[in-house]
Amino acid sequence: MFDITAPLTPGAISPGGEPLSLQKQLTERIQQAILSGHLPAGSSLISSRTLAKELGVSRNTVVNVYEHLAAEGYILADRQGTRVASLSGADRKNVSPVSPDTPAVRLADRLRPILETPLQPVHDALLSPGMPAIREFPLAAWRRSLDRAVRQLQSHSLGYSEPAGERTLREAIATHLYVARGVRCDVSQIIVTEGAKQALELCVTLLTDPGDTVWMEDPGYRGAKAAFSAGNLHTVLMAVDEEGIRVPKDAWTTHTPRLIYTSPAHQYPTGAVMSVARRLALISKASRTGAWLIEDDYDGDFRHSGGPIASMQGLVSHTPVLYIGSFSKTMFPSLKLGFLVLPARVMAQAKTVLNEILRNGQQLQQMAMADFMKSGEFGRHLGRMRRLYRERQRILREALIADFSPDQILGGKSGMHLTLKLAAGDDDKRIAELAHQHGLGVQALSSFCTRPGAVSGLVIGYGNTSSNDIPAAIGMLTDLIKQGRNVKTCRS
Amino acid sequence: MFDITAPLTPGAISPGGEPLSLQKQLTERIQQAILSGHLPAGSSLISSRTLAKELGVSRNTVVNVYEHLAAEGYILADRQGTRVASLSGADRKNVSPVSPDTPAVRLADRLRPILETPLQPVHDALLSPGMPAIREFPLAAWRRSLDRAVRQLQSHSLGYSEPAGERTLREAIATHLYVARGVRCDVSQIIVTEGAKQALELCVTLLTDPGDTVWMEDPGYRGAKAAFSAGNLHTVLMAVDEEGIRVPKDAWTTHTPRLIYTSPAHQYPTGAVMSVARRLALISKASRTGAWLIEDDYDGDFRHSGGPIASMQGLVSHTPVLYIGSFSKTMFPSLKLGFLVLPARVMAQAKTVLNEILRNGQQLQQMAMADFMKSGEFGRHLGRMRRLYRERQRILREALIADFSPDQILGGKSGMHLTLKLAAGDDDKRIAELAHQHGLGVQALSSFCTRPGAVSGLVIGYGNTSSNDIPAAIGMLTDLIKQGRNVKTCRS
Repeated sequence: MFDITAPLTPGAISPGGEPLSLQKQLTERIQQAILSGHLPAGSSLISSRTLAKELGVSRNTVVNVYEHLAAEGYILADRQGTRVASLSGADRKNVSPVSPDTPAVRLADRLRPILETPLQPVHDALLSPGMPAIREFPLAAWRRSLDRAVRQLQSHSLGYSEPAGERTLREAIATHLYVARGVRCDVSQIIVTEGAKQALELCVTLLTDPGDTVWMEDPGYRGAKAAFSAGNLHTVLMAVDEEGIRVPKDAWTTHTPRLIYTSPAHQYPTGAVMSVARRLALISKASRTGAWLIEDDYDGDFRHSGGPIASMQGLVSHTPVLYIGSFSKTMFPSLKLGFLVLPARVMAQAKTVLNEILRNGQQLQQMAMADFMKSGEFGRHLGRMRRLYRERQRILREALIADFSPDQILGGKSGMHLTLKLAAGDDDKRIAELAHQHGLGVQALSSFCTRPGAVSGLVIGYGNTSSNDIPAAIGMLTDLIKQGRNVKTCRS
Repeated sequence: MFDITAPLTPGAISPGGEPLSLQKQLTERIQQAILSGHLPAGSSLISSRTLAKELGVSRNTVVNVYEHLAAEGYILADRQGTRVASLSGADRKNVSPVSPDTPAVRLADRLRPILETPLQPVHDALLSPGMPAIREFPLAAWRRSLDRAVRQLQSHSLGYSEPAGERTLREAIATHLYVARGVRCDVSQIIVTEGAKQALELCVTLLTDPGDTVWMEDPGYRGAKAAFSAGNLHTVLMAVDEEGIRVPKDAWTTHTPRLIYTSPAHQYPTGAVMSVARRLALISKASRTGAWLIEDDYDGDFRHSGGPIASMQGLVSHTPVLYIGSFSKTMFPSLKLGFLVLPARVMAQAKTVLNEILRNGQQLQQMAMADFMKSGEFGRHLGRMRRLYRERQRILREALIADFSPDQILGGKSGMHLTLKLAAGDDDKRIAELAHQHGLGVQALSSFCTRPGAVSGLVIGYGNTSSNDIPAAIGMLTDLIKQGRNVKTCRS
């Protein structure tokens, strides 16, 4: 194996299926011989002329191999000839296989909250929350927008793109937000992101340092918790009631926040709508203390009862609100397009760093999305989906009311999910596990909650489940809830 | 303005160009009246019947408006009639305009290093480093790959996608890395990222906590410095010589690292090739101390002299190397596709968290990229670009050698840039500034360096500058260098 004069194999093929040239074979062979210690430091290599003759290859091949090995530092060539370089005693034998005292892999501490309560996503299952009706998505119209975006690609658009995102899409978003959500902003305040999660991470990167305090709704969106924990923030959990996040009076002084996470239009997952009194109180306190309010408007476009609840962002001028939106539910999840609207005075400061912390790697989707919005397809799609989800929610309510009290059913003013409250003693995680085994994607309410035992319930999505499938699925779920209770009883 | 019985404007248009329904106009008018204090808390609203008559609209319109306002918490409706809700004294007058004691915007401390030395990117200028020959990119072939990807989109691919990236692309990357770079990995070890920067950020998120030590090449890649500073790591700068990063012996104990950033194939920006002895020493020490080596292989595909320098990742089994690659230079910058190859034992641990920290928002580009690689277009393109860049480098060297000593020209064994060393007294930042004013995108070597006065020079790209344009551009640059010297002399 380490006889460097052994015949080479013309036409050899690598494990990857590519031809291995004689030059490459010889290079690797000599490298192996040196790394394994079979050619020790200081030993002479035979001359290129002799080696070429022995191997039956052109002298040029061997000369190239020696030059390459010299460039990588394997060998030294001077007037005395060609010798193996000293590899500082750290040759491969000392390195591999790993020495027995190699420390174990230690992931970052900041990942511990995620590692400790892993979520099993079951997106393809019936009743999965957060999953829109992808089978109803107008794929043909979307392909037309993509085609137009592909045609628009010119060589000058291949260079470094605007970090905040394609201007044409930011224009379309500004108009949509103003009309549909009452968000007041200029195109220059919008940053297009890779979904809502990147928008959250940007808020953390731009405005917090490790150890800063963030207030978080509990129960609340896991993605936000993960982003805050990844940024090493000190997360203070705030309970949620029917008016949204409930802040104890003294919290502003005892746990002064830098960031406050909220989902005012439709609290996730309880569905509470934050009252205007609470919105104004939060805005007023935040403005005074220099805190920033995150408004996660994840499903504000699907309002089912009454007119749309306007955004918190647009409530006052000089807003302290960082507004986050996403196309994952209004379009489809794998698109992973979202946006962040920064207050103008934050953007003025942040502009300098955006170049070095943003990427904007979705030029094509962004151009297609702008086309989809400006051509009116997006508005038509939203209208169709709003009607579809309204109907599905109606059927879901009917099915639930057969077995549960209306008081147990939370939310539903907008979006694609309802939350079913269970008795405090019901093990919702156990029930959700059973449901997953039976192809139902409902999530345990307590898995969105950090305070143990604070809540028990099921988050039930109706976005991806047709009206025909809902009654049977809920029938099965009701059985599983009973079964989950019995299992608990048997065990205790 | 706050007379709620004043006539509405049928056919009114919003500033965004959308029709404003009468219902929306009336809702906003009453909201303004309440928020401004013109309708104080507790005051009664006139009955819907009377208001409808006064406004000349259907009663239903007013009923809808009142219901909406009640849902948002502006008004309360009960048997006593409809009254304005109490907004806890925090009405809009108290909130906006911002109170004079509102704290100023304070960006995160971790952004300070970026804010303090902002880089002016001049990507479109001649001689801009890091900018590939986008005009030579085979756009027609790329469009064909995109078209095929668009055709492949099916409704079932619209759901949540694999966080590590499309499998078909990871397969193509694994094969390419094995053949071209000697990287040994399985498809499951690859994570497709939004460019090299996201790959760096992932290394930080997965394997470090704030305050951990990272070793960084100095001069070195600014994007890496930004990622480490954003992760609140303690960055220890290591000088670079002609064999790459130079680690003082006692550093392993005095500044034990968690991460070590390197660019072994072609140090950025000095062009040094890391010797195999240093590679092995780093691997050996890192394996023993539990540190991770980042190998940023940003331009390893464009090797100009000798065979390709194999990756450090593939040198030993049980590697402690986190390998980073990017398609920004081999394809084009706005594609923003890159990848991270994790050691199998890191991936085994990290798998659980990837779902919550990764996004994968480039499904379409990933599918197109896989098609481009598997159809052979990528290999053909690399070959053409390698020949083109080799020729451009030759012309650039010739032009430089007319005015500078060959000892001043660093790098060039691979990639798309050369570095011209200047005298210690030359103010390279001033010269780069002058050059930018004259349409030349060269960068000051010292802007990649944190130790003040350690280096002076210019990083000169030849990727985006045709052979015809290079001599005149270098002629101009030579004049500007002299001019920059004179300015300095006049000033001092």
